Amino acid sequence: MQPLDRVSVVLSHTTHPGNIGATARAMKTMGLSRLVLVNPKFFPDPQADAMSSGATDILVNARVVETLSQALAGTVFAVAMSARRRELAVTPMWARDAAAELVAASVQGNVALVFGNESAGLSNEELLQCRRWAMIPVNPEFSSLNVAAAVQLMCYELRLAAQNPGMPPEIAGAGLPASHEEVEHLVEHIERAAIASEFLNPDNPKRLIFRVRRLFSRAGLEREEVNILRGLLAAFEKKSTGGKS
Amino acid sequence: MQPLDRVSVVLSHTTHPGNIGATARAMKTMGLSRLVLVNPKFFPDPQADAMSSGATDILVNARVVETLSQALAGTVFAVAMSARRRELAVTPMWARDAAAELVAASVQGNVALVFGNESAGLSNEELLQCRRWAMIPVNPEFSSLNVAAAVQLMCYELRLAAQNPGMPPEIAGAGLPASHEEVEHLVEHIERAAIASEFLNPDNPKRLIFRVRRLFSRAGLEREEVNILRGLLAAFEKKSTGGKS
Repeated sequence: MQPLDRVSVVLSHTTHPGNIGATARAMKTMGLSRLVLVNPKFFPDPQADAMSSGATDILVNARVVETLSQALAGTVFAVAMSARRRELAVTPMWARDAAAELVAASVQGNVALVFGNESAGLSNEELLQCRRWAMIPVNPEFSSLNVAAAVQLMCYELRLAAQNPGMPPEIAGAGLPASHEEVEHLVEHIERAAIASEFLNPDNPKRLIFRVRRLFSRAGLEREEVNILRGLLAAFEKKSTGGKS
Repeated sequence: MQPLDRVSVVLSHTTHPGNIGATARAMKTMGLSRLVLVNPKFFPDPQADAMSSGATDILVNARVVETLSQALAGTVFAVAMSARRRELAVTPMWARDAAAELVAASVQGNVALVFGNESAGLSNEELLQCRRWAMIPVNPEFSSLNVAAAVQLMCYELRLAAQNPGMPPEIAGAGLPASHEEVEHLVEHIERAAIASEFLNPDNPKRLIFRVRRLFSRAGLEREEVNILRGLLAAFEKKSTGGKS
């Protein structure tokens, strides 16, 4: 079982069924699948289905319970999400650290991430049933984060905490890199053509060639590109020779 | 001017006005304000207003243009977001690294983060106008991230890249921590009461006291809590003395 399979997303007393659907979509895009609903106002509901955008399996398998305590049964660790600071002595954290701790705790058993009602959030009593509570850093002047958006952010953080995304995304069909000699020959070709065109002073070619090398180095030339550029240079040379004669 | 004030969010050829409103809300929760719309299908639109959930200032100030090139005029750096791998030699990155690079580039001037149409994404021609392109790591079997959700994730990454959120959120009204002596007196009180109650063998009190100390150390006791616990112990002592006599 992978870490993300051990994380339940718990929505408590959700008012708008569209948010339940958007939550399912958000979870599935990040590879989470366990949804628990505490006393939702409307569920199942066509709006939830519509907003899930195809993540209907998560809605079909969602567990519906009466209390948060039932939702947390069988878990070894839970983080409550809060949009506001509270007068509670339970340790608060930032979202990213909470995601890392959830993934770490998932080695020991099932864990849960708990979101409250759209307008009131979680009650203090609900929050105190969780080992930690966490906040998403937001603009203090406009902290109105939609609940499904908060789920999206946390599931993204969980995905990154659970599995390093690794190397940058590969370029589909990226070409073969040019070899050192191919680049050198191209630079020599440019130098030759620049001198022939009288753009370049043969006694002081250094500045142009330095800039050209710098640009190619940054770009990381591909073999195909070297061939294209050399073809272009050859065409210029032919044209100018033709013009001169 | 702060880094986030220099970042434009560009939505190209957006079909659903609700996504424009949700984008405005997502931006504002993270402290971004510049929205540019390239040839939106419907704008302004009541659905955009409704979904902005009060971030109407961003919609009112949104710049509407005809082409991506117009949207990028005046910027020194742009990142295109893509949901799919492409056959392009422009360097691809992961979302988090792209956010860091955008914030770093904002020192030199205005920068842009570009999102494509809901169904087709950005065209290759649009993508090639940007210095970098980036992907959000998603579940490869369900990569259907809503465009406003993608904006939300990127604006969150930008906020974290631009300003370290600092220490964990403070607990509103957290009590004064207990002093070393207060904790010591509490531990002694527990030991005394445990011996008196005959729960604890006075010749070997170590194990219980070790566990008690460990728990208190982890919890970080507050003065108020020490007082409550000592009051409770005193009540037990009084009761048991009364019972014995």
